[in-house]
Formats: sequence, structure tokens, C-alpha cells
Amino acid sequence: MSTISLPLTRDSIVAAHNLIKPHIHTTPVLTNTTLSNIASTPQSPEVLKGTQWEGQEPAKPKIRLFFKAENFQKIGAFKVRGAFHAVLRLIEERGIEDVRKKGVVTHSSGNHAQALALAARTFSIPAHIVMPSISTPSKISGTRAQGAILHFSGSTAAEREAVVADVIKETGATLIPPYDHPHIMLGQGTMALEFEQEVAALLAEKPELSVHSQDCARAEKGLDALIAPCGGGGMLSGNAIYFHNSTTRVFGAEPEFQGADDARRGVAAGERVTSVKTLTIADGLRTPLGPHTWNVIANRDYVAGLYAVTEQNIKDALRLVLERMKCFVEPSAVVGLATVLYNEDFRKMVEREAGEEGWDVGLIFSGGNTTIEALVKMFGDASEERKQREEGVVDANGRRVAENVAG
Amino acid sequence: MSTISLPLTRDSIVAAHNLIKPHIHTTPVLTNTTLSNIASTPQSPEVLKGTQWEGQEPAKPKIRLFFKAENFQKIGAFKVRGAFHAVLRLIEERGIEDVRKKGVVTHSSGNHAQALALAARTFSIPAHIVMPSISTPSKISGTRAQGAILHFSGSTAAEREAVVADVIKETGATLIPPYDHPHIMLGQGTMALEFEQEVAALLAEKPELSVHSQDCARAEKGLDALIAPCGGGGMLSGNAIYFHNSTTRVFGAEPEFQGADDARRGVAAGERVTSVKTLTIADGLRTPLGPHTWNVIANRDYVAGLYAVTEQNIKDALRLVLERMKCFVEPSAVVGLATVLYNEDFRKMVEREAGEEGWDVGLIFSGGNTTIEALVKMFGDASEERKQREEGVVDANGRRVAENVAG
Repeated sequence: MSTISLPLTRDSIVAAHNLIKPHIHTTPVLTNTTLSNIASTPQSPEVLKGTQWEGQEPAKPKIRLFFKAENFQKIGAFKVRGAFHAVLRLIEERGIEDVRKKGVVTHSSGNHAQALALAARTFSIPAHIVMPSISTPSKISGTRAQGAILHFSGSTAAEREAVVADVIKETGATLIPPYDHPHIMLGQGTMALEFEQEVAALLAEKPELSVHSQDCARAEKGLDALIAPCGGGGMLSGNAIYFHNSTTRVFGAEPEFQGADDARRGVAAGERVTSVKTLTIADGLRTPLGPHTWNVIANRDYVAGLYAVTEQNIKDALRLVLERMKCFVEPSAVVGLATVLYNEDFRKMVEREAGEEGWDVGLIFSGGNTTIEALVKMFGDASEERKQREEGVVDANGRRVAENVAG
Repeated sequence: MSTISLPLTRDSIVAAHNLIKPHIHTTPVLTNTTLSNIASTPQSPEVLKGTQWEGQEPAKPKIRLFFKAENFQKIGAFKVRGAFHAVLRLIEERGIEDVRKKGVVTHSSGNHAQALALAARTFSIPAHIVMPSISTPSKISGTRAQGAILHFSGSTAAEREAVVADVIKETGATLIPPYDHPHIMLGQGTMALEFEQEVAALLAEKPELSVHSQDCARAEKGLDALIAPCGGGGMLSGNAIYFHNSTTRVFGAEPEFQGADDARRGVAAGERVTSVKTLTIADGLRTPLGPHTWNVIANRDYVAGLYAVTEQNIKDALRLVLERMKCFVEPSAVVGLATVLYNEDFRKMVEREAGEEGWDVGLIFSGGNTTIEALVKMFGDASEERKQREEGVVDANGRRVAENVAG
């Protein structure tokens, strides 16, 4: 990784955006009346039975939703932002010839692998991707299609890191980690910059989309809140850095299944959770925070709160996005929407803080890299496989999954 | 239905667009490099085994694709265009007070019912919808949510028409048919007008998206071809009217399962097929042409050709649109893409007509009104249900389906 030190500020994100803009899509911002109406309708007391909010008066927040559709991003996920930024900063520091000679390397079985492969290929740089040999075939073929050099490893963190070390020793390649580095965090933060500008342009044309349509001065301030999914924390910290000291409060959302809400638990306990072992269907969010992302996310001045949602919440939100918004997204992409619709702690907070007028809330569809087979497994009557998942043997793809340890 | 007689011309479509534009979405035009590349790659000889093209040299067309995303239209399908146009013309003729007093009525279990309900509600007109009592619950609740007055009937055409006649007798409501009327056809044709303008704007900004990027004069002429799905023929005839005597050739695509390719068969035989009984997964395309749509579609000056695709072709194309384009569409929406990718007759024709340079081809995602359950049934291992479908007992929703007769 480049050792150029960039401050974690909005200005650094503006600079990152200027660098990567020619290589990424400016993804659209979508709105949806039906989903905003559902968000602004109290849950029924029946739905709350069996939850921690049973017997409580359902919250009555007023909410309008704005969606940043990174599922339409290159490679189908926001990860290209950080990958391009990290590679361009590396070229800046070492010179393109040196980087082309030695290459880049990462350990990832997910969207980061494809993102790095694309960024590297764009500049004719060799990309070495270390993947557990149990990765899903579609991820392996997707990464290979980007022209990457694949190296297979065992599925524990130690086994993967050993293969990465071998690759670095042999080639001199530079490690580009998936999330826990300032360049990655600043790269992911570029979506916040676009989101802010696009919402401003949208509300200038259609002020009626805002809860503040009667109060132009307020509407011009943009989103009241933004919720980003939180896995390793690259995207959440990037958004939090961009909106620091603005009128847009940034929140994080996680799955709660099998302790996947490591950021929330860590912040509550005042200490980073360094290992997570979960098979949540939101498979992009199984990783714990790293030291860099933790520093931002644990700071209340940056992230105003963290919320967790159940697997059923995620499935319900996913169904709404597919069937109502006609957008194909992966389960990880909807934890923010699930929080808005189903987490009473969040909803009560909005009711309390926003009052009668309500909030304009931004959500990020982080990616769309799932398959019809995964949907069939999630929603079909695969009772045996579901039982195995509950026992922690296999994931939603029917595959045994490794422990995820912070990089 | 209004009896105002409008000529079936481009000018009438421009007038229709001016009328309905405040009430509909201008849906986006999308492009996708991966899908254009697949379309421009010859199929492998293995894939053609067992088809009518077995042993033939696979075609090598060069194709760039442009998608009109009517799945993002209001109510999730293009049908609002025709419905608003028909209602507005009726108001023009009879006056709003008379129409409000008597209402409108249609027989439909599909997108047209929801479209008419929305159009009627917009002008505070009662909408009576006659539906077979076996309609899927989501369609019933969707139509009811639009504020329509539901009337249930048996599932044969005669039973439905008897209930419609009763409603008309009791209320004086005007019948707004789902496709076979000039006002509906002209209303659906408005998507062609938008498509043409949007492609022109897109290519002005990004000429590299066109196969004719080296030849600006040619690129300015817009799409070389457009393929519309064909069920009752309202959309296909509307597009064909708009592009009549232009440089854009219009084709129709149908499922071939159980004779759903009635338009293709009818045109080949020189006589309209008036009854179709098919359980194709493309459930929006199970209806035969009516007399009005037949007159346009059977005319080679309007529709340059009709092509049919298999159920497997539709499933393969649907998978690509969901997983690669991240767009949630219904099976009916992808028969055009399936034709481009898998129908060798179409592909050979493009190779022959377009030569080295290739064609820019427009496709219409007609709608996105399907459910996760329908996908699970289509792609899941529901072998028993699949067997029943092959035997013609139930449809992809697991429901017994009525014969479809032209209105």
C-alpha cells in the first residue's frame, strides 16, 4: 500500500473523487413513494410481538428516503471507488513502471477482489488475488474474468495471509487491503460527495420529495441523516468523514445474526471486537472493523449511532427493494432500509429528534452481486439447508464459511 | 371507450405524449457492455444442438443494446401509458362530470387493471375491474390498493365478458380494453418517442456506445432496430406506428411455448390466430392479437419480422438482466433480449443486413411485476410443479390458468 499520508477529511475525499471520477460510474439517486410511505407508517403492535419492543407503543417517524444505487456501479458494487483510489495513489508514489513490474495483491473472496482486478487491469498492472478455495464459483469466475492472477488458500485468516506473504516475497507486489486503510476509506467516501450533490440537484427540481418542502432554507441543507451498511467499515467511515461537522448525521447498520453487529457491540463496550464468526445472509458484512475504521466509527462526532437488524428484517427489506423498486441488490445492501423500517430504536430516535417535520434519510445500496440461486436458497423451501445455517455449518450459498478476522 | 377517431400515425403519438406526460415517468434508457458483448459473440455449436439450428454455422452479428426500462414506470409496467391516454380521450369526449358519474371498466388480471385503476383514481373516476377469482393474491391486492372496485368472474372469456356486461348495464361505465383499441395503441407508442429522443441524447454525449461511432451521420439516425415483446400487440403496434417510414426497423418477439407465438404463426399463415391457450412463464404475453393490433402487426411495412423464443431462452435472459444489469424485470420483459441472444434466425438476419458495422438495437423492458416466489418457482427445484406446468395444469405461479381469447 502507498505510504502517502492523507488526512481523513472532506478535502481528501474531494481530491480522491477528482482522481477516480474518470474510472467510475456516477451512480443514480433513486426515490420511491411506496417505501417512503411504509417508513412513515407505524409498525403494528402484532409485528413487534416476540421482539425487544413487544408491548411498546410503535414509533411514528416521518421519513422520506433517498437511495444511492451503487449496485449499478462498475463490478456491481461500491468497492471500485476505494480500489481505484488506492491504486492511483500507489502509482503516484512509486511510478507506474515500478507498480507494473511488481503488481498488487489482496486477500478477498468478495467484491474487493473484482474491484482491485478491474483497477489494476485498467493500468496494465498485474493483480494477484488470494481466495479461499471454497469461494463460490461465480466469484472465482468473475474475478478471473477481470484478468486477475488467482492464488487459492485455506479458509482461515492465517492460511490466507501466508499465501499473501508468499506472493509478496516472490513478486514484490503491494498489498491493497479490502477496507482498513485511509486510501480505501477516502475512496469509499466519494459516494457521499456524489450523494450530497445529487440530492441537492434533485430537490432543486422536485422540492416536494423532501420532508422540508415547505421550508426551502432547510431543504437546501440536504439529507438529515444517512445510514451506511457496516462490515469492515470502509464505506461507513468514508461517509462519516465526508459528512463530519455537517447537518447530515451518519449512522451505521449491521446484521445482528451470530454477533455480526461487532461494530455496535464494540462501541457499546468501548473496545473493538477483532473476530467475528457469522453466517448472516448479508455476506458482505461478516467482517469485523479494523483499527483504522474503528478509530472513525467509534467516535461519536463521526458516527451518531449503530443499529442491528435480524435476518428476517433483511429478507423483508430485500423483497421490498426487488419487488417494489425493481432493483436487484444483494442482502448486505438493504440493512440500512431494514433499520429504517423495522428497528424501533432508530424509528423512535427519528420521531424524537425530527419531530413533526421528519427527516430526509439517505440509504446506500452497496452492491448487487448476488445470484438467483442465492435468492432461491434464501426464500425457497430449503428447510434442510436452513437448518444447517441455523446450526452454523453452511452459509446462504450452502457453503462452509471461514472465520473472519480483522486485517 | 371514446369514439373519437385518431389516425394511427406518429403525429397522433406525439399528441398522446403531450397529453399523458404529466402523469407518467419518463423511464431511463440503459446500456450494458457485458450484454452487448454477449450479443456480439457467436453462440457455441454445442448450444445449438437439439435446436432447429443444429449443425449450422453460428451467426456472427455485431450488436449494441439499448434498454428502455419501463419496469421503472408507474405501477411497474408500460400499461399506464395506454390507460392514461384512453381515459384522457374519454374525458375529452364526454366531459369529466359524465365520466365521473359512470366510471370505467375493464377485464384484466394483469398490469392493465392496475394501470386503469391508477389513471381513473387520478381524475376521481370510479374504476370497475373484472378479474378471474383465481387471480394471484398480489395482483388482487395491488389493484385494490389503487382504489378500484373489484368484480370477480369465472376464468373463461365468456364468463368475464358477462360480468363486464352486467357492470356496464348497472353503472353506464365505459369499457377500456387492455390493448385492442387505437387509443391504447397510440398511448403505448409514446415510449417509442421517448426512446428515440433519449438514445439521441445519449449518443450525442457518448457516441462510443453506438456501433456507428465512426460515422456520425449514421449514428444520428438513431436505433437501427427495435424489438418489442408481443402479447395482445398494443405495445408492438404502438412502436411500429411511431417508427413507420423511419430508419428504425421494428420487430416483435414472443414465447413459443404451447403456441404463445400466435402473432408469428398468424402472419405466416396470413390469418389472425384468435385463441391461445398457453402457460408460458412470460405471463404478460399469453393473449392473442386483436383485430386492431393485427392490422398493424401483419403489415410488413410496419413490423419487419416476428421471432419466437423458448422458455429456457427466457429464463437465461432473465438471469442475465437480474444478475448482470441489476434490474428486476418480469419474464415477459426479456423476450426481446432472448431473441437477440439466442434466436439464430434473428442473429443471421442482423449479420446479413447490418454487415461488418452492426446494428444498434433497442429493447423494451416492458415491466417488473413479478415476485420472489415466482422466481423461486421458476428457478428452484420445484420438480412436481414443473411437471404440472409441462402438463398444462398450472402456471408459473402454481395456479390454473384460463384460456385467453382476443378482445
